[in-house]
Amino acid sequence: MALRKLGFAPDRAETCARLFAETTRDGVYTHGVNRFMRFVETIRNGRVIPVAEPEVVQRFGALERWDGHRGPGNLAAWAAMECAIALGREHGVGCVALGNTNHWMRGGTYGWQAAEAGMIGICWTNTMPNLPPWGGAERVIGNNPLIIAVPRANGPVVLDMAMSQFSYGALESYRKRGEMLPVDGGFDAEGSLTRDPGAIEKSWRPLPAGYWKGSGLAVVLDMMAAMMTLGKATYQISSVAVEETAISQMFLALNPGAVGSSEEAERIADAVVDSLHNCEPAKQGSRVRYPGEETLRLREENTRLGLPVEPSVWAEILAI
Amino acid sequence: MALRKLGFAPDRAETCARLFAETTRDGVYTHGVNRFMRFVETIRNGRVIPVAEPEVVQRFGALERWDGHRGPGNLAAWAAMECAIALGREHGVGCVALGNTNHWMRGGTYGWQAAEAGMIGICWTNTMPNLPPWGGAERVIGNNPLIIAVPRANGPVVLDMAMSQFSYGALESYRKRGEMLPVDGGFDAEGSLTRDPGAIEKSWRPLPAGYWKGSGLAVVLDMMAAMMTLGKATYQISSVAVEETAISQMFLALNPGAVGSSEEAERIADAVVDSLHNCEPAKQGSRVRYPGEETLRLREENTRLGLPVEPSVWAEILAI
Repeated sequence: MALRKLGFAPDRAETCARLFAETTRDGVYTHGVNRFMRFVETIRNGRVIPVAEPEVVQRFGALERWDGHRGPGNLAAWAAMECAIALGREHGVGCVALGNTNHWMRGGTYGWQAAEAGMIGICWTNTMPNLPPWGGAERVIGNNPLIIAVPRANGPVVLDMAMSQFSYGALESYRKRGEMLPVDGGFDAEGSLTRDPGAIEKSWRPLPAGYWKGSGLAVVLDMMAAMMTLGKATYQISSVAVEETAISQMFLALNPGAVGSSEEAERIADAVVDSLHNCEPAKQGSRVRYPGEETLRLREENTRLGLPVEPSVWAEILAI
Repeated sequence: MALRKLGFAPDRAETCARLFAETTRDGVYTHGVNRFMRFVETIRNGRVIPVAEPEVVQRFGALERWDGHRGPGNLAAWAAMECAIALGREHGVGCVALGNTNHWMRGGTYGWQAAEAGMIGICWTNTMPNLPPWGGAERVIGNNPLIIAVPRANGPVVLDMAMSQFSYGALESYRKRGEMLPVDGGFDAEGSLTRDPGAIEKSWRPLPAGYWKGSGLAVVLDMMAAMMTLGKATYQISSVAVEETAISQMFLALNPGAVGSSEEAERIADAVVDSLHNCEPAKQGSRVRYPGEETLRLREENTRLGLPVEPSVWAEILAI
């Protein structure tokens, strides 16, 4: 209902609300319902245009270029991955380059979407400049989340990783709990590596994951998204969170069934998972996990017990 | 001539030798001519079959699945990327899944190949188990190098990264120079993070780049390669270096010109490079570099001064 009041058509309001709720259900609380009011703020400040729908600008075989017209990012991303999946069915591999769009909230959503359709899904987005590159002192690259999802009978394997080692949200949580980070997470004011979350928040210099490696990966992900959409690169995007808009995203679907066997491919994925579970753990009593392994457990728990949403956020949503 | 004596046909011997020489020319000394005798060893022990050529097993639209028949890895990888490029021209995006192949030597080679053809090239390989996953104490995942190359008039941007923070070769170099690593590179015998290269060589526990992030990425890269080729995953590959064979690789080409403009796309890449060069450096007098920035300088220097090859290696090659 809140989205209807903000100008969404009924079916689009429902999909948009479902994606927020499913994100919370799957345990990604930072990008689910708790984030809804920030999304509303970007509608109210005009960065997100509720009625705008993505449009195909150019088609060539298994590749499409879309203009998101700055509509709601999660709706555009969902539509783009649906199209990539359809192209993957038709051509074995499909790709949609979506420019001029908005924050897609939880990237893993579109990985699950592809995997549940039997496809390997690969997607990434650029972001506002929020990370210093390796060797740099100011934030000029994005943390550019990359999602890779693999279909599997026992629940997909879904990697959903930003290119920073810790998000600003994670730094804040550690600081509020009075804890140090488990590993170095950035630089302090003197330019030394530190595990102190507060020092990193002050310096605005979190680490790219893997130092030069995550930095380089963030750069090429940004380049590819901007080049294929002919859209904006990170350096052209506002560094104020609620003003971030007109970002660039890529959606790829690979169809394992097209040149082989979906069943055999999924058995191969299962066997890799087994090899991880059988690995001798670093700490006795623990177990090596595959990417996204916790999701199904959290989903079951949150479905059974009800979605955990901050009461203040819920009150604000009801008041829209 | 050495390759001719080992059973290579004339044109294949020439291409194979050229790829080794170009790798050294471009400054990647670990995977160029200095590695040639190890390649010869894998021919002599039967892991690499000189006369074997890759074969198309199945085709579907923009996707092909190939069997490398355990031939020379660099020749098969070159042919697979040529095909992905051709599929990218025809369909906007192209993909070749190459199974049952051998070590491709320098992965960046196939990135340069795509970028010089005006394509964005993405490729990766699985490897023998040489890295413990995050949370694990034994090596059951591969360092699975990932290459992403972007075409650009002023020389492509080429990211060529393995999923370990430091290779075993890098650890050895630091130890021989008596130096500590610049950042944590693995665990010591007590399971503590350390910068001591010798301690990591002893524990066999180097770090994945970005801890849990590089570990997760290595897992899904392996899964995708094995699933799309219906070939072997890392856990099925011998952990003895010269016995590594029948590995799985993926080659993707995205065609920026198909749904837009190659020229405009390359200008976008140039502008991102400029934004990095204009970033305030962490150390005065230095400059933020883009992935692969040093290659053209090293190429020019090595072309001018002659290829730097260890004399002992050269003597061995002449003696074949």
